[in-house]
Amino acid sequence: MTFTVSKHIQKMSPSSTIAAMQKAQALKAQGKDVIDLSVGEPDFDTPQFIKNALWESVQRGETKYTATAGVKPLQSAIISFYERNFGVSYSPSQIMATSGGKQALFNAILSAVGEGDDVLISAPYWVSFPEMVNCAGANNVFIDTEETDFILTAEQVKRAITPNTKLLILNSPSNPSGRVIPADEFRKIVEVCAEKGIYVISDECYLLFVYPPNEVFSVASLPKELSEFVCICGSFSKTYAMTGWRVGYTIAPESWTKPMLKLQSHSTSHPASFAQYACAVALDDVENSRSSVKEMLAEYEKRRNYFVPALNDLGLKCSMPEGAFYAFPNVREFAVTSGEFADRLLNETYCVTTNGAGFGSEGFIRISYATSMERLQESIERIKKIV
Amino acid sequence: MTFTVSKHIQKMSPSSTIAAMQKAQALKAQGKDVIDLSVGEPDFDTPQFIKNALWESVQRGETKYTATAGVKPLQSAIISFYERNFGVSYSPSQIMATSGGKQALFNAILSAVGEGDDVLISAPYWVSFPEMVNCAGANNVFIDTEETDFILTAEQVKRAITPNTKLLILNSPSNPSGRVIPADEFRKIVEVCAEKGIYVISDECYLLFVYPPNEVFSVASLPKELSEFVCICGSFSKTYAMTGWRVGYTIAPESWTKPMLKLQSHSTSHPASFAQYACAVALDDVENSRSSVKEMLAEYEKRRNYFVPALNDLGLKCSMPEGAFYAFPNVREFAVTSGEFADRLLNETYCVTTNGAGFGSEGFIRISYATSMERLQESIERIKKIV
Repeated sequence: MTFTVSKHIQKMSPSSTIAAMQKAQALKAQGKDVIDLSVGEPDFDTPQFIKNALWESVQRGETKYTATAGVKPLQSAIISFYERNFGVSYSPSQIMATSGGKQALFNAILSAVGEGDDVLISAPYWVSFPEMVNCAGANNVFIDTEETDFILTAEQVKRAITPNTKLLILNSPSNPSGRVIPADEFRKIVEVCAEKGIYVISDECYLLFVYPPNEVFSVASLPKELSEFVCICGSFSKTYAMTGWRVGYTIAPESWTKPMLKLQSHSTSHPASFAQYACAVALDDVENSRSSVKEMLAEYEKRRNYFVPALNDLGLKCSMPEGAFYAFPNVREFAVTSGEFADRLLNETYCVTTNGAGFGSEGFIRISYATSMERLQESIERIKKIV
Repeated sequence: MTFTVSKHIQKMSPSSTIAAMQKAQALKAQGKDVIDLSVGEPDFDTPQFIKNALWESVQRGETKYTATAGVKPLQSAIISFYERNFGVSYSPSQIMATSGGKQALFNAILSAVGEGDDVLISAPYWVSFPEMVNCAGANNVFIDTEETDFILTAEQVKRAITPNTKLLILNSPSNPSGRVIPADEFRKIVEVCAEKGIYVISDECYLLFVYPPNEVFSVASLPKELSEFVCICGSFSKTYAMTGWRVGYTIAPESWTKPMLKLQSHSTSHPASFAQYACAVALDDVENSRSSVKEMLAEYEKRRNYFVPALNDLGLKCSMPEGAFYAFPNVREFAVTSGEFADRLLNETYCVTTNGAGFGSEGFIRISYATSMERLQESIERIKKIV
């Protein structure tokens, strides 16, 4: 029997970041000394106070179904977090817990668009954005941002809008470029969309991972007449080193949240019950939470300050990223395609990076610095030998 | 701003079982002494040995991303379980962990069908089946099984096949009827489908919840030329009282598993890492696992043996269910619609049941006996007063 795949799923491609990870694992299995610069997750373990909260929840017997939107303490914790940090107040009917930031985006995209709709995506983009759009049966319209050094502008958005544009997906700090859209430009982008009745998804998975003097910005802080066009997709994965836990959330107008709830009630129900309770503690225990984020951020900043200039010295040119934990250098002078360069790095130096073409930017590679300083230094030594 | 919902999600309806649950909660909040007979989950807590396995995993730092298909110990545990119980051997490329049995079904349906495809569903059905088909943009074709007392036959399937039929969804033991398709009939049904090249999804969420003298049956035990048309959707939720954990799995040919992996890699990634490790222990610790299932099953059987005859005595006629923990009695003599009868039960006796119309069988209601014997006895007293 040869299985005939449905049309929408046929259109989807496997994740190129997962492909890179699998190549790395194969080399490791051969006993090679692999340096994995492809990972999109913190190299820290989840803070102990969050782990403890999970165990307390399990011991209390919180092992049953929860509401699709998540347990009340988690909804309240998310509301308090945004109130504390951005001075906005949301109602529980606007908040919904999801199985990771990924499902937040999946729900938001599938609820908003279908066949005949165009979705604007700033390139380079996170690999799953266009695949989710494919799954919905809608069309991807990419906005190349190389000319503005990977920082999307309102002008670029305006030029890209088509008669069928229904949605724009933003991601700042960006995976893969690490770049941050300045607050005033961000506002202008949302204004351009709101004026045309175009919805906006703001992927804020790296929300708190912004290096001083740059400041944390959430679309939540925009005035209501703008934010009512916006769905925020957030995640606990990076902020609290909780990638494996699979908890994220959306904040959106009730009219957008309702179809997302409907979809999730028939696809996965909700994230693990006890993980939700632990995430509530991750936000509510402000002191522990702040100090663990501060500690991780300081470490990432130290690495960035060493690693990005070192890459530039080797000719792998990129601007200093303001956030996240990725560098996205230009490698055009070293190879015809970025895939070729990533393969050379892998085969000749056992450094695993990710081909920029998978992020919509041929000529670049993504290098994660979510690994120890020692390994970063070693990787620079190895890259030096081949460039 | 009024949000315009995408076409496919627009077609979906909210879950009627969740609606019943919410009605119950509202009455409880008013201080009423509600008996909840609407729940689709065990009233037992997760066995301690599984909880302990979770905590050990968290403490080992298994808090990171896993492969989309799940961690190797879980895949191996699922393979061993089916080998031990049904004498079949699967390869890891056929196994995939999901966020609950619900996502297993969602992945299987969306990968298989889209616009223009017909999906056969035996009615009464679990509420999410047709909604997942709507999400995929395919058409539902229902097979009414009232004439055979809710046990689907190969003959009924044969009659229902259309030129566009691509998929049949089976669920035995059935939610909501508790009925079990006999093994030889099950085989004939799959034969009818295989002959026409129609795929089959077998929802085996209640696999082990079969009361003696009836025997546990999995489609896994069918010969390979039949099972290669089949995707098994399994779950840890009911078997081990782990509804809140959100772990399920699919077993399918590699050619069906691949698109499911692609979809899940872009929708949720994987179930919580530590929950996966705990589920591996749930299966591998055969002694503890068997004794906890045996204990729960004995309790459900005791309740069934009291409750179903008691319902029949009151005129709520239904056959003895062979599995699961639901009764699905005919209520046509008490009200014009089953919704009306469920509402009367709720408002006059504070007994929450679920309207059979939501399961595709107007004239019936679903009553769950996953609640204590004492509450079941009390519910019979209350129902007596209104019939």
